[in-house]
Amino acid sequence: MMSAFDYSNPVKFYFGAGKFNQLGEIASKHGRNVLLVVSDSTKHTGQLERAQQALSDAGIAFAIYDRFMQNPLSTLVEEGAALARDERCDLVIGIGGGSAMDMAKGIAFCACNEGSIWDYVFGKKQAQRALPVILIPTTAGTGSEANRTAVFTNPQTHDKKGLVNPLIYPVAAIIDPELMLTLPKRVIAGPGADVLFHALESYISRNANPFSEMLSLQAIRLLAKNLPRVYEDVSCLDAWEKVTLASTLAGMAIDCAGTTLPHALQHPMGGLLDVVHAEGIAAVYPAFLEYTWSASPEKFAAIAQAMGVNTQGMTSEQAAQSSVAAVTDFLKGINMLPTLTELGVKEAHFDWIINNVLTTMNVVLNNNPRVPDATMLRDLLTRSL
Amino acid sequence: MMSAFDYSNPVKFYFGAGKFNQLGEIASKHGRNVLLVVSDSTKHTGQLERAQQALSDAGIAFAIYDRFMQNPLSTLVEEGAALARDERCDLVIGIGGGSAMDMAKGIAFCACNEGSIWDYVFGKKQAQRALPVILIPTTAGTGSEANRTAVFTNPQTHDKKGLVNPLIYPVAAIIDPELMLTLPKRVIAGPGADVLFHALESYISRNANPFSEMLSLQAIRLLAKNLPRVYEDVSCLDAWEKVTLASTLAGMAIDCAGTTLPHALQHPMGGLLDVVHAEGIAAVYPAFLEYTWSASPEKFAAIAQAMGVNTQGMTSEQAAQSSVAAVTDFLKGINMLPTLTELGVKEAHFDWIINNVLTTMNVVLNNNPRVPDATMLRDLLTRSL
Repeated sequence: MMSAFDYSNPVKFYFGAGKFNQLGEIASKHGRNVLLVVSDSTKHTGQLERAQQALSDAGIAFAIYDRFMQNPLSTLVEEGAALARDERCDLVIGIGGGSAMDMAKGIAFCACNEGSIWDYVFGKKQAQRALPVILIPTTAGTGSEANRTAVFTNPQTHDKKGLVNPLIYPVAAIIDPELMLTLPKRVIAGPGADVLFHALESYISRNANPFSEMLSLQAIRLLAKNLPRVYEDVSCLDAWEKVTLASTLAGMAIDCAGTTLPHALQHPMGGLLDVVHAEGIAAVYPAFLEYTWSASPEKFAAIAQAMGVNTQGMTSEQAAQSSVAAVTDFLKGINMLPTLTELGVKEAHFDWIINNVLTTMNVVLNNNPRVPDATMLRDLLTRSL
Repeated sequence: MMSAFDYSNPVKFYFGAGKFNQLGEIASKHGRNVLLVVSDSTKHTGQLERAQQALSDAGIAFAIYDRFMQNPLSTLVEEGAALARDERCDLVIGIGGGSAMDMAKGIAFCACNEGSIWDYVFGKKQAQRALPVILIPTTAGTGSEANRTAVFTNPQTHDKKGLVNPLIYPVAAIIDPELMLTLPKRVIAGPGADVLFHALESYISRNANPFSEMLSLQAIRLLAKNLPRVYEDVSCLDAWEKVTLASTLAGMAIDCAGTTLPHALQHPMGGLLDVVHAEGIAAVYPAFLEYTWSASPEKFAAIAQAMGVNTQGMTSEQAAQSSVAAVTDFLKGINMLPTLTELGVKEAHFDWIINNVLTTMNVVLNNNPRVPDATMLRDLLTRSL
């Protein structure tokens, strides 16, 4: 029997080719003085220039903040927030991948809330408001445009952790597949794999509910079919429409259900060694799948089906187990099966990583259908070297 | 290729057995002085008494409005709105089936907007605000708790038409399957069939988008499997959880995609002859399905699958056509296949009905994948006598 659950998602989504052209019109509903938080890639692609033009045409003033990296630092969030205050911004617009979008959310939050963002992440202080945020993903990846989470790294402690707060739901998300048409293969595969990770982990999470399960499965179906198409031919707009939608659906799903074991393991790697999010997760995926599938055979059977496995004639167990090869082969096909060794993670890091998982990533860890102890965590990491 | 679309739904949903117990807590977030709009059935079931107690315990004052019928009249909406103003209500709570919920939405709207509601329905006047509304369905039916539509009948003109306005999105919807455990068979079958109608028509609608299609198909799957279970055994809470969720998903789907031909035909019957909503629709369903399936074979094939038909080995055409029998048999199984004659609709009414469809239900009619002219409408009605 399903247990009770609550659901809401206040984001206004604008989906489809050409929607980026509506930026001026959409922004003017929410502010007159914008802080544009943009990734480097928005410069050479002309996306930043288009955004500037759109805002100017709509009579909206703006400042630009672009100083951050792939694992956004909390110190830089505070720097961006100071800029937003100095410029008296009333709206933040984030354009880029997950880092730019999380940065925009963090800045919008910190602009209205004094002190360290970590006090809010760890629930020591309560916030009453944040600036409105509009997010425009330029990768089909984190799905940050669809939820109230933003992940930061603390450069002092190396903790990498999410601010989860309804105040940072975007007021609008513009998901335009045309923005993906020039992505290099590596920035198709990494974020694309992340969509799969979000969809799969939210689906099996102990926090999943019937609504989030629907979102997760649909994301897996769309992604499994269409990510290989855009990996093969980046200009395939039809497939990008499905991949970008999958990314947003998965972003909505983790908003309900969270992620599980692989994300718990990746966060310390990202915080300590600046490992790229999707690569760190991919490295532990085979070991995670082997360890977990038997704890939730019906769900892993559904995952196999959504991945395109013909499970007719299989027992539920066989179908579930077939998901391991389906997911692993899928990652192999987009060149996203690194080892921890290749990512610079060594056995010498394991003590710190395991301790960090068990102290800061407990909630995420406990979402997994089967929860490993320190010994099992070490085993999973060792098998992923 | 999918075309661009926007999506948002700001409703906060509270799903699950026992959620009705949170009414006081949820209401206190939104108001201090409530107008309770309730159907008659809330009296003998004790639901009204529970609501009164919950509000009293939360220190919330309330008045009660319960004067309306199965096709809510616009004149009574205005009467309820006057009561809300007199009592200085700051929140409306609707408890009941679709009529009570639509009535609550209409009252919340009219309490803040002077003049006839029809000026807003037909877009002659614009509204800026409405009272917040909380909706609690006691049938698994219209899904009104999930959207911004409320349907009323004008007793002067017999027009039956929906107010569609973002101001009447509920701030909260409490969907508690325990409220269904005493429904008589007829109030399982009628509203239950309506869920199927909403899900199927929103799915095939020309206004459907990939998000609404996901909602529609999931609603069909959940309903096809579980409505027969509760029709057989009203005490089956597990199946009611799925049926109530299906109802809400279908309510979300029509919010995106609208309904099609059957609803266009039913509205005039409801307005003129007070025909029960689901029965009027059911009577034209076989003719509608036969007329429409070939215009959208892929979608009707997916409907057949979602209804539980094993379509392996069928051509897409065969699978699509199999949906006609699947839906018709399903309706037969819950005793919901009346003829128009049984509902009191006669050939003498056809001129008025057809004229009303073509003048007031054009938008809904044009959502159908194949759009009938007056001659074809007459043919469809005749075949449904």
